[in-house]
Amino acid sequence: MQSFSLKRLLIGDPLSTAQQAYERLTKVKALAVFSSDALSSVAYATEEILLVLILAGSGAVRLAWPLSLAIAGLIAVVITSYYQTVHAYPKGGGSYIVAHDNLGVLPGLVAAAALTTDYVLTVAVSTTAGVAAITSAFPALYPHRIVIALASITLITIANLRGVRESGTIFAIPSYLFIITFLSMIATGVYRWFSLGMPPALEPQHVPPAIHGLTLFLALRAFSSGCTALTGIEAISNGVQVFKPPESDNAGKTLIILAILSITMFVGVTFISHQFGTVPDEATHETVVSLVARTVFGGGSPFYFLVQGATMLILMLAANTSFNGFPRLASILAQDDYMPRQFALLGDRLVYSNGIIILGLLSAGLVVAFGGQTTRLIPLYAVGVFMAFTLSQMGTVLRWCRLRGPHWQLKVAINGLGAAATGVVSVVIAATKFIYGAWAVLLFIPLLVAGFQAIYRHYQKVASQLSLETVGPPPRIRRHRAIVPIAGVHQGVLHALEYARSISEDVTAVYVEVDPDETARVRERWEEWGSGVRLIVLPSPYRSIIGPLMDYVNKVDDIRRYDEVVTIVLPQFVPAQWWENLLHNQTALLIRLAFLFRSNTIVTDVPYRLQA
Amino acid sequence: MQSFSLKRLLIGDPLSTAQQAYERLTKVKALAVFSSDALSSVAYATEEILLVLILAGSGAVRLAWPLSLAIAGLIAVVITSYYQTVHAYPKGGGSYIVAHDNLGVLPGLVAAAALTTDYVLTVAVSTTAGVAAITSAFPALYPHRIVIALASITLITIANLRGVRESGTIFAIPSYLFIITFLSMIATGVYRWFSLGMPPALEPQHVPPAIHGLTLFLALRAFSSGCTALTGIEAISNGVQVFKPPESDNAGKTLIILAILSITMFVGVTFISHQFGTVPDEATHETVVSLVARTVFGGGSPFYFLVQGATMLILMLAANTSFNGFPRLASILAQDDYMPRQFALLGDRLVYSNGIIILGLLSAGLVVAFGGQTTRLIPLYAVGVFMAFTLSQMGTVLRWCRLRGPHWQLKVAINGLGAAATGVVSVVIAATKFIYGAWAVLLFIPLLVAGFQAIYRHYQKVASQLSLETVGPPPRIRRHRAIVPIAGVHQGVLHALEYARSISEDVTAVYVEVDPDETARVRERWEEWGSGVRLIVLPSPYRSIIGPLMDYVNKVDDIRRYDEVVTIVLPQFVPAQWWENLLHNQTALLIRLAFLFRSNTIVTDVPYRLQA
Repeated sequence: MQSFSLKRLLIGDPLSTAQQAYERLTKVKALAVFSSDALSSVAYATEEILLVLILAGSGAVRLAWPLSLAIAGLIAVVITSYYQTVHAYPKGGGSYIVAHDNLGVLPGLVAAAALTTDYVLTVAVSTTAGVAAITSAFPALYPHRIVIALASITLITIANLRGVRESGTIFAIPSYLFIITFLSMIATGVYRWFSLGMPPALEPQHVPPAIHGLTLFLALRAFSSGCTALTGIEAISNGVQVFKPPESDNAGKTLIILAILSITMFVGVTFISHQFGTVPDEATHETVVSLVARTVFGGGSPFYFLVQGATMLILMLAANTSFNGFPRLASILAQDDYMPRQFALLGDRLVYSNGIIILGLLSAGLVVAFGGQTTRLIPLYAVGVFMAFTLSQMGTVLRWCRLRGPHWQLKVAINGLGAAATGVVSVVIAATKFIYGAWAVLLFIPLLVAGFQAIYRHYQKVASQLSLETVGPPPRIRRHRAIVPIAGVHQGVLHALEYARSISEDVTAVYVEVDPDETARVRERWEEWGSGVRLIVLPSPYRSIIGPLMDYVNKVDDIRRYDEVVTIVLPQFVPAQWWENLLHNQTALLIRLAFLFRSNTIVTDVPYRLQA
Repeated sequence: MQSFSLKRLLIGDPLSTAQQAYERLTKVKALAVFSSDALSSVAYATEEILLVLILAGSGAVRLAWPLSLAIAGLIAVVITSYYQTVHAYPKGGGSYIVAHDNLGVLPGLVAAAALTTDYVLTVAVSTTAGVAAITSAFPALYPHRIVIALASITLITIANLRGVRESGTIFAIPSYLFIITFLSMIATGVYRWFSLGMPPALEPQHVPPAIHGLTLFLALRAFSSGCTALTGIEAISNGVQVFKPPESDNAGKTLIILAILSITMFVGVTFISHQFGTVPDEATHETVVSLVARTVFGGGSPFYFLVQGATMLILMLAANTSFNGFPRLASILAQDDYMPRQFALLGDRLVYSNGIIILGLLSAGLVVAFGGQTTRLIPLYAVGVFMAFTLSQMGTVLRWCRLRGPHWQLKVAINGLGAAATGVVSVVIAATKFIYGAWAVLLFIPLLVAGFQAIYRHYQKVASQLSLETVGPPPRIRRHRAIVPIAGVHQGVLHALEYARSISEDVTAVYVEVDPDETARVRERWEEWGSGVRLIVLPSPYRSIIGPLMDYVNKVDDIRRYDEVVTIVLPQFVPAQWWENLLHNQTALLIRLAFLFRSNTIVTDVPYRLQA
């Protein structure tokens, strides 16, 4: 079993269910585990703002600074809202659960669909942005960006199939490396700007001529692109249960640290690029973060390469976050009958393997379809995130209204502000990015919801038909007929005949006559070897085996009693080597297929195994 | 059943076995039916000689004329030999039959392998040469030659699957059209040369500079290429039985007419191209026959287009010849256990459909692999033909020696001359074309022979293991255990349980425990619905279903008596729509696969069909 060994080599030996265990995380480790998605957005959010503004010329890029402050405000509002959510759901409050519990089934499914698109996009965007960090440092790799991205996704998929735990220690190193290098870069940049004024000259950048006036729409579109900085902020609220007790308190404190870091880093990078006049350069495909790092540290500096490497690593961790989130969401949806059951199965390594594989395939497909370019993926991104934010905050509002604990009016006000802010931003994002790709997400989410509902209806239908309580038990079988189709008289046929005689007292052998010359020989041999079982010869003028046999079984079925069952016992010899099957007619297989969708008939193969 | 309707549309309704009938052919019709392959070689044989000679410069092409006379002599010798063969085998004497009967099994298989390669090559060469006739007249089509060739092969394949009879009338028109137009062209050309001397000037042709001295090897290579003129000459000897009686006499006379036509046309075309100095022009991809026809009739003349059209048609008929020959040879080999049995099955339309499809696929593959260019295929061609000629003639010699009828010494001398001539030519062809592609055929033929023998051994092995006489009948089954694996307690399970109880008095239900919380519920429901059948719970720490089940069956098997059989009765619900299968775990299918190669266990699915 070669494939079996390959599987073992890639993902390791199976783990027993008893080995399932959860590590409780300290705040320091939890920040590392849950912040990668949110913090890593810093690597591309500023750039995406600039890429929109630059359409209105080099003057318009100055608008990036006030836009980044607006986005920082939004981060503060959203994190305050989630601060309440983590206290309301100490066992973890993902958007699907919160929306489902408080708003109802349909909003829950919409949140689930929005999250699903977003998980896939997170992997695609993070991977391509991570590869861009590398190709900025080593431009010769740019033509190979798709291959590198696919290799990264494959690696992350395999690692997750092996069951990489969200172990704090492994995650802490790249997360804190990224935080430290970015904060150092910002501090150095601010110091240089403050003490030296202008930065040392970089090679001149190509600023394309303005092709667009600076309209309100363009400014809002730039704002929407920058809102990708908020993706991943909800991760802590999904994972409250893995914090050390008191879970909610620790999660809330971690959220506040995340908010401070996120705002500092995003505003910091934007500030430096603003002061130094850095704009994305489409000719060199160099990222804005790389340009900023080169301005601050100089291109050949080891600090520059450290920034690029740390950016790549945190983006891979961000992609990895989806590989934890999506399979878990899919398994919850599968348990609720909204996704295929297979997503709820724990694989060999105690992970939801099917969800991991599907996520890997879908995101790899997106990377290829969008040419491995982050910018082309961005218009699809964040639409789902903000829909999920809004539904989650609305759900929390309703929850406070229902429970009415202490200070409930204040809580309603805070989450209401969050819901309103994210709701408005959702509409802005959907409207400004619509023609650039968001339409696809807005089309896909309702289709996905319809799919969830269709799957749910299917399982309901199956359950009602399988139910013993509504239908009652099947009738007892009191008569049993067996039909043995034969193509000759040999060992395989006699084994099948013996089996048929062991299960039924009413056995008939059936021979489909293609060549009348053969019939006499078959009859004669049956006389000798057929144990007295009756043989029926069916003429087949068109040389079909299935047709006359089906007609015969139909006739038998017409006189079948309700408590009688008909079994077709098929002699089938199994060659020693699989390829030897090519040398035989596979009539047994064709008969099995022909009867597969026919009611009331059971087909049994009696294998006669040949020696090599 | 959409595929079913498409099949009906393409190949028509099935025909009953009783509709099988053979048309007896007059000499006039038989010539049309059997000559297309042999005569159509005229369309490319001269050109292939010139293409080799031109490597030694424009002077060397004069050698084509004596070479064509040598080939004409060879045609006379071979046809005289076959004249004897048709008298010796009035029921048809293909090379496989003649070699097998007289020389033994191995030479017969070598002849069969040689013929097989040759049938495939005939389709590829004839189709590409036919397309070349069209692209010579309409050069704009040249880039589309592969598509046109594939379309032609598809058309011929479908026509043969429908069961085009070798009906004389349909074949007579293009065959006689070709004969008449070519003879007219030759007569006109000879008349013009005789009366006018030099032909009207064509546009100057590109004669490449000599890159090679005119060596004996090059001359022999040119001769080998010209020997493609002999391909198809054996067709009449394969089909003696369809002539009107006296079959052998009529076949013999037809052979002589074929010889006269073949020699006249081949020598005639070569003569004109020789006198007019026509050489193949690689720049324009125009065929020599097209150049000759343009020289004789003028490029815009309707006669020119008639020649090209007739050439295309006869080459399509030549390809069609293989679609009659190969499936018939394959069916004979299959009946003799040297090819898979499927080749001996008469399809819906009373033709050997599998042989037709395989031939179509293989020749289409060759056309694509060789870029749709006749010249590149030629080095592979004729090797097999001459091997088959030689074996057939040698077989006939031995037959005369054995039977010793009247004039047997003379007959031995004639066929001996044929065998010697074709034997020598075989060696010449193999040697001169070896590095240009013949090596592939010389490698493939022994591999094919080894394949035939492996298939034969397999069938012998199966037959001995299936034999009742050597092994004796199987023991009577006296005890029957049934095992019903269950994943829960529902209608599907109870149907399977009822079935198991109807076939055995010793039924055990087996539940593989993945989640211990579920077990209590299953036990409780089994108590209520399980009809008192014992339930065994198998723990599965690694969550595998197959593993613990397999272990359990192995344990049961260890205590199985020789006259006892174990049946695994699998509850399987069949969704109303095929795609609904995606929503279920397919555990039943996996169990079936796992037990497929296991001895002594029979697996029965009990389908429970769900309503839509």
